[in-house]
Amino acid sequence: MNVAFDATSQDPSDAALSGSVGSVRLGLDQALELDGGGTLSRFRLAYRTYGRLNADRSNAVLVCHALTGDQYVAEQHPVTGKQGWWDLMVGPGRPVDTDRFFVICSNVIGGCMGSEGPKETDSTTGKPWALSFPVITIADMVRAQKMLIDHLGIDQLFCVIGGSMGGMQVLQWAVSYPDKVYCCLPIATAARHSAQNIAFHEVGRQAIMADPDWRQGDYLNQGTRPTKGLSVARMAAHITYLSEPALHRKFGRNLQDRKSITFGFDADFQVESYLRYQGISFVERFDANSYLYITRAMDYFDLAADHGGVLANAFRVQGTDGRLTGTPVKFCVISFSSDWLFPTSESRALVHALNAVAANVSFVEVETDKGHDAFLLDVPELYQVARGFIEGHAARRGLAARVG
Amino acid sequence: MNVAFDATSQDPSDAALSGSVGSVRLGLDQALELDGGGTLSRFRLAYRTYGRLNADRSNAVLVCHALTGDQYVAEQHPVTGKQGWWDLMVGPGRPVDTDRFFVICSNVIGGCMGSEGPKETDSTTGKPWALSFPVITIADMVRAQKMLIDHLGIDQLFCVIGGSMGGMQVLQWAVSYPDKVYCCLPIATAARHSAQNIAFHEVGRQAIMADPDWRQGDYLNQGTRPTKGLSVARMAAHITYLSEPALHRKFGRNLQDRKSITFGFDADFQVESYLRYQGISFVERFDANSYLYITRAMDYFDLAADHGGVLANAFRVQGTDGRLTGTPVKFCVISFSSDWLFPTSESRALVHALNAVAANVSFVEVETDKGHDAFLLDVPELYQVARGFIEGHAARRGLAARVG
Repeated sequence: MNVAFDATSQDPSDAALSGSVGSVRLGLDQALELDGGGTLSRFRLAYRTYGRLNADRSNAVLVCHALTGDQYVAEQHPVTGKQGWWDLMVGPGRPVDTDRFFVICSNVIGGCMGSEGPKETDSTTGKPWALSFPVITIADMVRAQKMLIDHLGIDQLFCVIGGSMGGMQVLQWAVSYPDKVYCCLPIATAARHSAQNIAFHEVGRQAIMADPDWRQGDYLNQGTRPTKGLSVARMAAHITYLSEPALHRKFGRNLQDRKSITFGFDADFQVESYLRYQGISFVERFDANSYLYITRAMDYFDLAADHGGVLANAFRVQGTDGRLTGTPVKFCVISFSSDWLFPTSESRALVHALNAVAANVSFVEVETDKGHDAFLLDVPELYQVARGFIEGHAARRGLAARVG
Repeated sequence: MNVAFDATSQDPSDAALSGSVGSVRLGLDQALELDGGGTLSRFRLAYRTYGRLNADRSNAVLVCHALTGDQYVAEQHPVTGKQGWWDLMVGPGRPVDTDRFFVICSNVIGGCMGSEGPKETDSTTGKPWALSFPVITIADMVRAQKMLIDHLGIDQLFCVIGGSMGGMQVLQWAVSYPDKVYCCLPIATAARHSAQNIAFHEVGRQAIMADPDWRQGDYLNQGTRPTKGLSVARMAAHITYLSEPALHRKFGRNLQDRKSITFGFDADFQVESYLRYQGISFVERFDANSYLYITRAMDYFDLAADHGGVLANAFRVQGTDGRLTGTPVKFCVISFSSDWLFPTSESRALVHALNAVAANVSFVEVETDKGHDAFLLDVPELYQVARGFIEGHAARRGLAARVG
């Protein structure tokens, strides 16, 4: 499988509408306007689709990936060989049922799996963008996705779903395009990045930038790779994705392949060995500059700040009579009890804001000790809740039957 | 003030017993036996004292410092120029009242403020120890302190007090020398280092070792300093010393000296600027290899494991009749409600173990949003509790009056 699949199409082909497309160049007619002031024209967006779009193009589900995720949501990953990162959620018979829905997942701009980002070549210079790539926001990512949806000829998405940074994109979709989203599931996320989360991101960025092989971001031109710095960044972040109880349950103070401590700096403890593995395996599939850009986009995310400091205002839309009314988008907000990166309190703040505009919102805090990563793991209640919400709204939307 | 003060004394001089001593060489007659199997002979221990030892040498209080602390507990620091790290707790009229008590604080072995550690010169080679310094444990640190107390001619410490890793030393003192400690205050600590805490330490160590200027630990001989790696380690650790509510209260998403985000990788947010400052200022006063050794000592700390897996057994002593009985040491265990590095649950486990041997123990969870660092900060309840406990036991011990 070719990541930077070159069979790009300017028109939604049959292939695009029935799965397995690689990437497309967008921004040909009109450049993507960026929050930072610049534009991106003729930018590449890499995406995968699963299932078939129905005749009235009403069964499309957009899956938004998290910081280190990508478009390979429900199939083997071309680099790691691992199964799709969310194939518990997306696939035949899954809550996002590819026998019924046309599922789209695109690599975010700024990413490193084929979409335009610092690793890709700037066509105006013929060299990798590196740090000349514009700093982007979650809203920029979503605007690029909107261009893809337009390109596919889809007027309204039945559902937008994602966890963590994927959840930020879900919220941004509902805020930016309330008439283009029927229902949505923001999972393990928040309407703004907290001070602590910005702090952890900053540690990761500093770890990357401290690596001399980073070369002020120019490593691709100089033939180096800041693998050590990126590995440390990943290790620090990975701890925040878990919970202390989960770490205790999985590893405790168990030793790694030895009967007693060695009085040295090798990985005596299983948890050290595990973390080192997380760091080492991550650098094989991820680009250090992408890590800088995407963490920055998350740091900048603050829906309330974009709406006069009042989060509820993000969810008000102008009705046909010109008066402000609550968003028509239906929400299912899900948090995890042991998630300390995006704690339930952040989801509650979101639900309060949605309630304040009388939006259609349901909210579930799933009880689990698996921490933030729970949205990717085998936590049955998550999939039960998602299935119930999606089936209910599919029925209301007349999407109950399987697509031929 | 000279950190590696060379006026060492083999005998407890008048100066040593009335404050301001620099360091002493210990292990002259008998080497320090290390948990890792080796020994340290003729090792230097740097310490400071405050107040005067009374005639019957019963008013000594040992203060144990945390990971990055040192012996300058209640006076201006010779490197940073800052006030003593715990002068809210120790000083004239403070809970540990230097008008009444003879206070001793020594830099731990493995440290970098004058005590024997990787930065110091190995007298057998004439070169810095670097990674040839033996890996040490909390019990090793405490055995070295015991040699200092013996050297000062003190048979029993009235009190041993410390927070975080200092609290681990407090517990180790009570376990190793129950008849040499009258009462003790382990604060914001635990009887073992958790998997999550080992994980955070491992990230810090990997950040240091990823720095090419670390030179496999040999940087002092090679004229480099792994300041970037050590700075990243400090930044990651520093987040764990705070709490999300404290970070939110102090910084929130406030911007640093600017009106709007810059769409770049500068420190837009105050929390980033603060963290960078923490990293940069730390490397001026701390040695990277010491950071490796001391974090490792904390990782290895597990009192239950040392006693057949049963924590309560750590606190049983053989009575004069040969039967096992509960420790005679009186405990005041203090935790902080927002400390997620050493959460209250760890203190509770300790208290349960002490209760199981019918030890004299009081326990207070101080309500504060300041996180783990609360033990160093202006949290009035902490000092009230410490004062009450110390005054009560000083009265029982006949130490109510001021000395001299």
